[in-house]
Amino acid sequence: MREAMIITYILATICILSVTVHASQCSMNGIPLVRNISELPQDNYGRPGFLHTTLAGSLLHGMKEIEVWLQTFAPGTHTPIHRHSCEEVFVVLRGSGTLHIASNTHTKFPGEPLVYPIFTNSTFHVPVNDAHQILNTGEHEDLQVLVIISRPPVKVFMYADWYMPHTAAQLKFPYYWDEKCYKNNETPENDEL
Amino acid sequence: MREAMIITYILATICILSVTVHASQCSMNGIPLVRNISELPQDNYGRPGFLHTTLAGSLLHGMKEIEVWLQTFAPGTHTPIHRHSCEEVFVVLRGSGTLHIASNTHTKFPGEPLVYPIFTNSTFHVPVNDAHQILNTGEHEDLQVLVIISRPPVKVFMYADWYMPHTAAQLKFPYYWDEKCYKNNETPENDEL
Repeated sequence: MREAMIITYILATICILSVTVHASQCSMNGIPLVRNISELPQDNYGRPGFLHTTLAGSLLHGMKEIEVWLQTFAPGTHTPIHRHSCEEVFVVLRGSGTLHIASNTHTKFPGEPLVYPIFTNSTFHVPVNDAHQILNTGEHEDLQVLVIISRPPVKVFMYADWYMPHTAAQLKFPYYWDEKCYKNNETPENDEL
Repeated sequence: MREAMIITYILATICILSVTVHASQCSMNGIPLVRNISELPQDNYGRPGFLHTTLAGSLLHGMKEIEVWLQTFAPGTHTPIHRHSCEEVFVVLRGSGTLHIASNTHTKFPGEPLVYPIFTNSTFHVPVNDAHQILNTGEHEDLQVLVIISRPPVKVFMYADWYMPHTAAQLKFPYYWDEKCYKNNETPENDEL
């Protein structure tokens, strides 16, 4: 009888703790104002060699105008080719790689991108709606970047290649790291080109 | 005669170079998309022990919705007590210090601020219009932060102390690092509390 009570107590405690953890990941309640980045949740969202942490987010921290991410790309990994209707700034904290970016010279599809080397202690921005891709083209070192976007939460249109029509690019919303805390099932505003 | 020609040539070259440098500091023409942060202009704007670099700016790089700064505070230095009608996120790259922040519990003046330690690899955000101050309270190490704001260029209201009425806070616009490239003399939109 006593053992059954102890087991029930342990199970109840585990249950309460998991509810608390889940609630605190999608609610500002209990999240300290100053946060230790190394203690924040991080995930690869099904992409091996990738790590994402939201440092300041719209769903997690109530940001309305800016969002800040910390992302790590292992050698050989990259983002999808994608565009979004917001401003985006990168600060490269360590490693090196390549930025592919197709400014809107073609009206129907991105077209062959310009290629820029990116490196530790460099910064660049991606103009609104320019299709782009970040790649860790190195062989040994991780590429770590801080990413800043406007108009959160981000609505991403993904391309299979640089010649896919803009109108065929696939909308992913909420984006992978926003899925867990995004409760509103309404479709986003139309950010089509 | 030949010496005079050489001197004239040198003077003309210096003149052309300085015009070019001045133009490139306030124009997107000639600024590369990917920029080496250590080669960007930095200044202390009359504040000893302070260094500011605009990584992505509205006046320098045509940003409309976000702006990113890199700032360094020597031990004992700090920002003014101030507020701005925009969101702001900090990422502490190195060093430690203190955040003083007065959320709007008083309607007439900021009041006694809450005090939070900030440290390497921490992040925090300042809600719109909350009066705040960042201090390097350490004794030996520089405090280096990345600062992200929305609604650039920033319009800063500065307080002499935490008990100065909000209405007496002094507007500084354009802010120090925007002065050089801000050409429009119109007054900003009213962002008063």
